[in-house]
Amino acid sequence: MAASLWLRGAASGLRYWSQRPRPAAASLAVVCSRSMASKTPVGFIGLGNMGNPMAKNLMKHGYPLIIYDVFPDACKEFQEAGEQVVSSPADVAEKADRIITMLPTSINAIEAYSGANGILKKVKKGSLLIDSSTIDPAVSKELAKEVEKMGAVFMDAPVSGGVGAARSGNLTFMVGGVEDEFAAAKELLGCMGSNVVYCGAVGTGQAAKICNNMLLAISMIGTAEAMNLGIRLGLDPKLLAKILNMSSGRCWSSDTYNPVPGVMDGVPSANNYQGGFGTTLMAKDLGLAQDSATSTKSPILLGSLAHQIYRVMCAKGYAKKDFSCGVR
Amino acid sequence: MAASLWLRGAASGLRYWSQRPRPAAASLAVVCSRSMASKTPVGFIGLGNMGNPMAKNLMKHGYPLIIYDVFPDACKEFQEAGEQVVSSPADVAEKADRIITMLPTSINAIEAYSGANGILKKVKKGSLLIDSSTIDPAVSKELAKEVEKMGAVFMDAPVSGGVGAARSGNLTFMVGGVEDEFAAAKELLGCMGSNVVYCGAVGTGQAAKICNNMLLAISMIGTAEAMNLGIRLGLDPKLLAKILNMSSGRCWSSDTYNPVPGVMDGVPSANNYQGGFGTTLMAKDLGLAQDSATSTKSPILLGSLAHQIYRVMCAKGYAKKDFSCGVR
Amino acid sequence: MAASLWLRGAASGLRYWSQRPRPAAASLAVVCSRSMASKTPVGFIGLGNMGNPMAKNLMKHGYPLIIYDVFPDACKEFQEAGEQVVSSPADVAEKADRIITMLPTSINAIEAYSGANGILKKVKKGSLLIDSSTIDPAVSKELAKEVEKMGAVFMDAPVSGGVGAARSGNLTFMVGGVEDEFAAAKELLGCMGSNVVYCGAVGTGQAAKICNNMLLAISMIGTAEAMNLGIRLGLDPKLLAKILNMSSGRCWSSDTYNPVPGVMDGVPSANNYQGGFGTTLMAKDLGLAQDSATSTKSPILLGSLAHQIYRVMCAKGYAKKDFSCGVR
Amino acid sequence: MAASLWLRGAASGLRYWSQRPRPAAASLAVVCSRSMASKTPVGFIGLGNMGNPMAKNLMKHGYPLIIYDVFPDACKEFQEAGEQVVSSPADVAEKADRIITMLPTSINAIEAYSGANGILKKVKKGSLLIDSSTIDPAVSKELAKEVEKMGAVFMDAPVSGGVGAARSGNLTFMVGGVEDEFAAAKELLGCMGSNVVYCGAVGTGQAAKICNNMLLAISMIGTAEAMNLGIRLGLDPKLLAKILNMSSGRCWSSDTYNPVPGVMDGVPSANNYQGGFGTTLMAKDLGLAQDSATSTKSPILLGSLAHQIYRVMCAKGYAKKDFSCGVR
Repeated sequence: MAASLWLRGAASGLRYWSQRPRPAAASLAVVCSRSMASKTPVGFIGLGNMGNPMAKNLMKHGYPLIIYDVFPDACKEFQEAGEQVVSSPADVAEKADRIITMLPTSINAIEAYSGANGILKKVKKGSLLIDSSTIDPAVSKELAKEVEKMGAVFMDAPVSGGVGAARSGNLTFMVGGVEDEFAAAKELLGCMGSNVVYCGAVGTGQAAKICNNMLLAISMIGTAEAMNLGIRLGLDPKLLAKILNMSSGRCWSSDTYNPVPGVMDGVPSANNYQGGFGTTLMAKDLGLAQDSATSTKSPILLGSLAHQIYRVMCAKGYAKKDFSCGVR
Repeated sequence: MAASLWLRGAASGLRYWSQRPRPAAASLAVVCSRSMASKTPVGFIGLGNMGNPMAKNLMKHGYPLIIYDVFPDACKEFQEAGEQVVSSPADVAEKADRIITMLPTSINAIEAYSGANGILKKVKKGSLLIDSSTIDPAVSKELAKEVEKMGAVFMDAPVSGGVGAARSGNLTFMVGGVEDEFAAAKELLGCMGSNVVYCGAVGTGQAAKICNNMLLAISMIGTAEAMNLGIRLGLDPKLLAKILNMSSGRCWSSDTYNPVPGVMDGVPSANNYQGGFGTTLMAKDLGLAQDSATSTKSPILLGSLAHQIYRVMCAKGYAKKDFSCGVR
Repeated sequence: MAASLWLRGAASGLRYWSQRPRPAAASLAVVCSRSMASKTPVGFIGLGNMGNPMAKNLMKHGYPLIIYDVFPDACKEFQEAGEQVVSSPADVAEKADRIITMLPTSINAIEAYSGANGILKKVKKGSLLIDSSTIDPAVSKELAKEVEKMGAVFMDAPVSGGVGAARSGNLTFMVGGVEDEFAAAKELLGCMGSNVVYCGAVGTGQAAKICNNMLLAISMIGTAEAMNLGIRLGLDPKLLAKILNMSSGRCWSSDTYNPVPGVMDGVPSANNYQGGFGTTLMAKDLGLAQDSATSTKSPILLGSLAHQIYRVMCAKGYAKKDFSCGVR
Repeated sequence: MAASLWLRGAASGLRYWSQRPRPAAASLAVVCSRSMASKTPVGFIGLGNMGNPMAKNLMKHGYPLIIYDVFPDACKEFQEAGEQVVSSPADVAEKADRIITMLPTSINAIEAYSGANGILKKVKKGSLLIDSSTIDPAVSKELAKEVEKMGAVFMDAPVSGGVGAARSGNLTFMVGGVEDEFAAAKELLGCMGSNVVYCGAVGTGQAAKICNNMLLAISMIGTAEAMNLGIRLGLDPKLLAKILNMSSGRCWSSDTYNPVPGVMDGVPSANNYQGGFGTTLMAKDLGLAQDSATSTKSPILLGSLAHQIYRVMCAKGYAKKDFSCGVR
């Protein structure tokens, strides 16, 4: 992960963020100039499966939107609804001083912020930039420094909950950044989620998300293994689930999202593992956990094996199935 | 585990249980002769850490006891309390037609039932023999066959819950055996536990216990890894636990028995991992899960790694610490 | 594994071998009566893929055979060649005082020795019984005790090398048993193998075989992972194999049986993983390693994971492919 | 690892190397100007445990050196021997057109090349820069691009073999870079190693090193597990090693560097695991393998577990022991 520390200034060659003095005070001074009282336009970059319903919830709460997506088709719906569509992240930054980004990978986030037509090209001082993508916490920290240098504020705010929760406005946001700005972030995030949790400094939102999903992956595979073993030993699946759920094996994967078909209704296992949270997305999150563990030298024996299991599952053709398709 | 299938009759050489016709009807016919209405003496074999408080709860409910333990000291307390102490499992079987066994390993259980002075030497027709030890389900099935041959009834009824639950009578019993006998078993087990769950045929009580504890081990180690990684990424442990517990990473190990010191009160992690459920006991249960998985050819990738992790922990000197001392 | 310790005498109930005095001297006294100078008939039980060519090599060395297999068709070829076919292991034991058994599982070996028509029913005092099956070392020890009780001698002598080595008489035998009998065993085994290695007491032949195959499985999967990673990082497979083989990553799986198609000729990876040593057989051997590790409380982190990986491969349809089809 | 793709030009914002056209032809044109015929000074940066004896071997072959190390003490010995010590990597580049770098981590390599006083500040066109550090192949590729932009040539050439091999000039170099430059690199590397292997494009030297060491780690742990299990099953360690080494379990870790004390002389296991290749260095290399596997989405189940095992060993106090101290 050493390479994640790269940051090259024009005059100074490559440097590492940890060696650069952090202009922490800057963000406080500039906040005042940002419009919060009235519902001024909010920028939204990334209108995919998750971003689309999230943006709509902002609309429902009366916020005019400035929209951008690399795929123009993704913007149509919003244009027809009267929202303003622009042609680059830079243009979003020109017209909005609060921007939410919802992108699939670290690379996309870097491009949206620091690319040739990125937000940073035209960001206004005092702007609030909230990244709801799930990315490497080290990248979040890098972006935050770039943003701070421009006199603006960056917060990472990845979400928990899938498309359904995005539609119903019931996402959980895990927010990292300067605590003084949390209220401002919550004003917007609260329109899209029922839980908005402050986690600490920049990057801790990502950290919380990553840790949760690593534990989720472990307990999901563990549930699948325990259920499968029990069935082979002669237990009825529903009865076994009931016993686990009243005992110390109880977990979200056993009591809310059981991976064995026939045990619960309304979950992906009841529908041939369609919908839900794709195996490939879980593999991505576990890759982030793995990178974070390697760079912090944290042993994650089960987390690492869970990561590799999801890698194999993707390679074997289960990439688009729900992650509960587990070890069968 | 092939060797677990050994059973040698005098005339017929070695045979395997699966090939022997099962005299299922026998148990029904003989039940009538057993005394249930009045509180006739109940045999109790194995008065260790768990057996001691369990037997006392039977006493509290008015059952006279016939006591045996390989360590005479373990019986003293009961003798002083007026209970009858005898000198072998066979003698217990001679004086009681309902017997509970609570022993540490498969070998001890085999000895108690089939040894030179075992229960089977003097068991009465129609007796109800309940084994609350946690042992290999394949052994439970073997014992059940031996017992059935004598015209008696065998049920496996391992417990969940530690010494505290044994004292307060709040154990959970997972019961396998002929369903018609479940009510008779529940009469006794209900004096010692708040949950008595019927799981299916003989051996399924053990299966349920083993599957639960395997999932418990996996989610405990997973919780430890996720908490540890989060802390190294800058998260406050209490906050991280709170976030996990409202998200999909939630599990008994995170919300009821958190392994990180300082997160919760009244759990072993708050007391230098003293008390609770010892690492060596968890390693034993995972060994049973491993054996069962190998004999049924069930893949248990995380379960198997969890097993090995607990083996290493025992070898490294954590054998007597609570199993939540996890990977630190 | 406790159950592997079962042994029930007609009068005495269940006992464990470790508690029974071992009649070690008996074997010495009786050896003299066994015919070694001339080529008296040798019994052979189990004429499968391996047993068939092994028996033929004994024939080539001039030994008359007494043949038995549960599948009569397997005996035809030998009958036509003039060898004597009998109808049970007991009958083999009646006519031959040296017997070799080559069977697929522990259960089959137990049946052949201790079954209703097993060897032990008619074994002569002083007979030499050599089991070349790969089975649980604990079962070998049990069989040895049964055999000793009859005044005969038991040795475990599992083989390394596949069908090709069996045909060419180039197997390796790993032999466990009383050292004084090793020369007698070597006389026969030397007709079928180029290496006959004395390993120690009964069961150590199996132990050596199991440990070797566990290490083989680990290094095979490791080789597949390293080769695959290197290829994805841009290395030519042949060059990478060459580099590994001159460096510290060198192993039999990389230099003699490389799992990547195109790297070597004449190995299963060059032939769509056909032939060779089946995945299901490797899973079986790893199951034995797992059982042995659990019963001796030995941590085997990689061995255990390798075991589970082969279990998954069997479940996913690779059971009959060569074990080098590894993680692809 | 997305963040490893960062590279920010002054005017263009962040970009990724894969999107930049590669000036491949540049390197060819400039080679001519470099001095090869006579023994002109060679730059050497990084005079640690490995760099020190490597540099001395260059001296023995008659090459004058230009020396730099961040720790001035490391240079003393060379200054006293008459070599020229300078005060920054940039100064080395000013005085030598062939430079070897031998540094502990990716970060150190980045600093040496691209830092404020790095090589790139004063590198001459046509210079040959050989990095013998073991670092992330993705970083090697980044450095190569930076170097190419300056009209110079970069090759990665990590070594296999420890301090002993460095002293005796018997290292193995795995070299990645433009093939036309390999002869020039070999002229220097051949003074320090007995094997100089061309691996392919820039980064493949690192890839080969990483893959070898991952397989080494796996087979070392596997050997330790197999030896340990065998010993517990009653085998003599020396005999078991002999059997493995003539069978399919054979590997460098079993036949050249056996981890069990008493099996071999002259290896770290014979000396309380002192000397050799430290556990912490193996953990570092496995971290690089893990990063590479995650970024290329390659499943490495055993490699990943081996990584975590070495992480745990470092955390448990074995960081400075030889990596063969394995699982005991």
